[in-house]
Amino acid sequence: MRFDILSIFPELFASPLQEGIIRRAIAAGQIQVNLRNIRDWAEDKHAMTDDRPFGGGEGMVMKPEPLAACLRDAQGDAPGHVILLSPRGAVYSQRAAERLAGLEKIVLVCGRYEGVDERFCQLYVDEELSIGDYILTGGELAALVVLDSVTRLLPGVLGCADSAAKDSFSRSLLKHGQYTRPREFEGLAVPEVLMSGDHAKIEEHRFLESVRLTLARRPELLAAAQFTPAEEKQLKKAGLYAQVQQARAGHGC
Amino acid sequence: MRFDILSIFPELFASPLQEGIIRRAIAAGQIQVNLRNIRDWAEDKHAMTDDRPFGGGEGMVMKPEPLAACLRDAQGDAPGHVILLSPRGAVYSQRAAERLAGLEKIVLVCGRYEGVDERFCQLYVDEELSIGDYILTGGELAALVVLDSVTRLLPGVLGCADSAAKDSFSRSLLKHGQYTRPREFEGLAVPEVLMSGDHAKIEEHRFLESVRLTLARRPELLAAAQFTPAEEKQLKKAGLYAQVQQARAGHGC
Repeated sequence: MRFDILSIFPELFASPLQEGIIRRAIAAGQIQVNLRNIRDWAEDKHAMTDDRPFGGGEGMVMKPEPLAACLRDAQGDAPGHVILLSPRGAVYSQRAAERLAGLEKIVLVCGRYEGVDERFCQLYVDEELSIGDYILTGGELAALVVLDSVTRLLPGVLGCADSAAKDSFSRSLLKHGQYTRPREFEGLAVPEVLMSGDHAKIEEHRFLESVRLTLARRPELLAAAQFTPAEEKQLKKAGLYAQVQQARAGHGC
Repeated sequence: MRFDILSIFPELFASPLQEGIIRRAIAAGQIQVNLRNIRDWAEDKHAMTDDRPFGGGEGMVMKPEPLAACLRDAQGDAPGHVILLSPRGAVYSQRAAERLAGLEKIVLVCGRYEGVDERFCQLYVDEELSIGDYILTGGELAALVVLDSVTRLLPGVLGCADSAAKDSFSRSLLKHGQYTRPREFEGLAVPEVLMSGDHAKIEEHRFLESVRLTLARRPELLAAAQFTPAEEKQLKKAGLYAQVQQARAGHGC
């Protein structure tokens, strides 16, 4: 899979591309990442990529021409799906990551300043995405988030084949707590059941802990959760069924 | 403000800390960023920071002792607010960024692998935060998102004093489109009103565009939006009032 990233701070990407799974995926040829400095496509002698907004207001707006010229170069003869990282975008999610992981080429355009000239968005952008309801100084970190979350879904990138499938969100439940050695740490013991060797009991314990955590922290996620008849029985036995149904009703609107 | 970051990939932060507003805020002494490699606090000769989970399952869990030892060193005699970046956390938002910007010291703990031993979380973590409903290979990019979004809110960091206040989310509306020169770009003209010089009309145009965009992309945000009587009148005149009320009712549950 190929990622083209358009930014006025391409150097920002240097070290994140050299660590962990991203580095290994690049080395293994599973992904290719091309960085482009939008400034290289600016026309005037000062290489300006921003200008004041029509109608007044604080801050600067990214000019459409350098962006369009840089994008045309990135597209070449293999046009990819163009994403503008922007706080005005649709909310990025694991489902979006899965969708993007099926594409051959993505172009990530990193906005800066107060925004990007609206006409560039209208003419060239396939999709605006926001990684969350907070403001960043630019789209660069958001582009890295998309790159990372998509890359780990590509075949062969993660060590264990089903590690991606069991994460939080893959089934609308937060993940249960995890414990490793030592058996006792600063007075706290590992829950007995995890050392019982009884796999059915361990699964049930983890499932119920996931549900309790989700109820406490993110009850709105339960609206999309689906339970097997066996799981419904476990919820009833643990006295959680009514609470779960209530959370689902309250957030199903 | 001081940020301490605990990670097994501290080198990942090198280039992002050398660009834009973060670099300038460090240079101006507005923020201080201390990186710690959790591996330096591992006890065995292989510097292992992870181990297999009790109860079985895919992947590895971060051991509690190296994390605790590294954190004690970071806290020293000036304990800060400890945040674990994790997909199980509460959802990070602009409101959380504003809250964190009021603190003197934040310790950002970057989770990796399948998670962090639950006992470390119970004993040492003040707050778990998730930057969005997607899975990253580690908490490092999430820590950068928190660092960036908090830093830009600190006094004196952004050039224009009120630039932060007018962004998307600061009032539960997505930001209107922005336009800069040229007046015509590839057949598309800047909207007439923006060149009229009539500031009241420009404000109204931008407000209505913000509302339309929010209705189209993120209607759920409108539940928290507050309008002045003058704005309500503008919404009625533009035929948007009923739609806005409907969106507020539908997502107010």
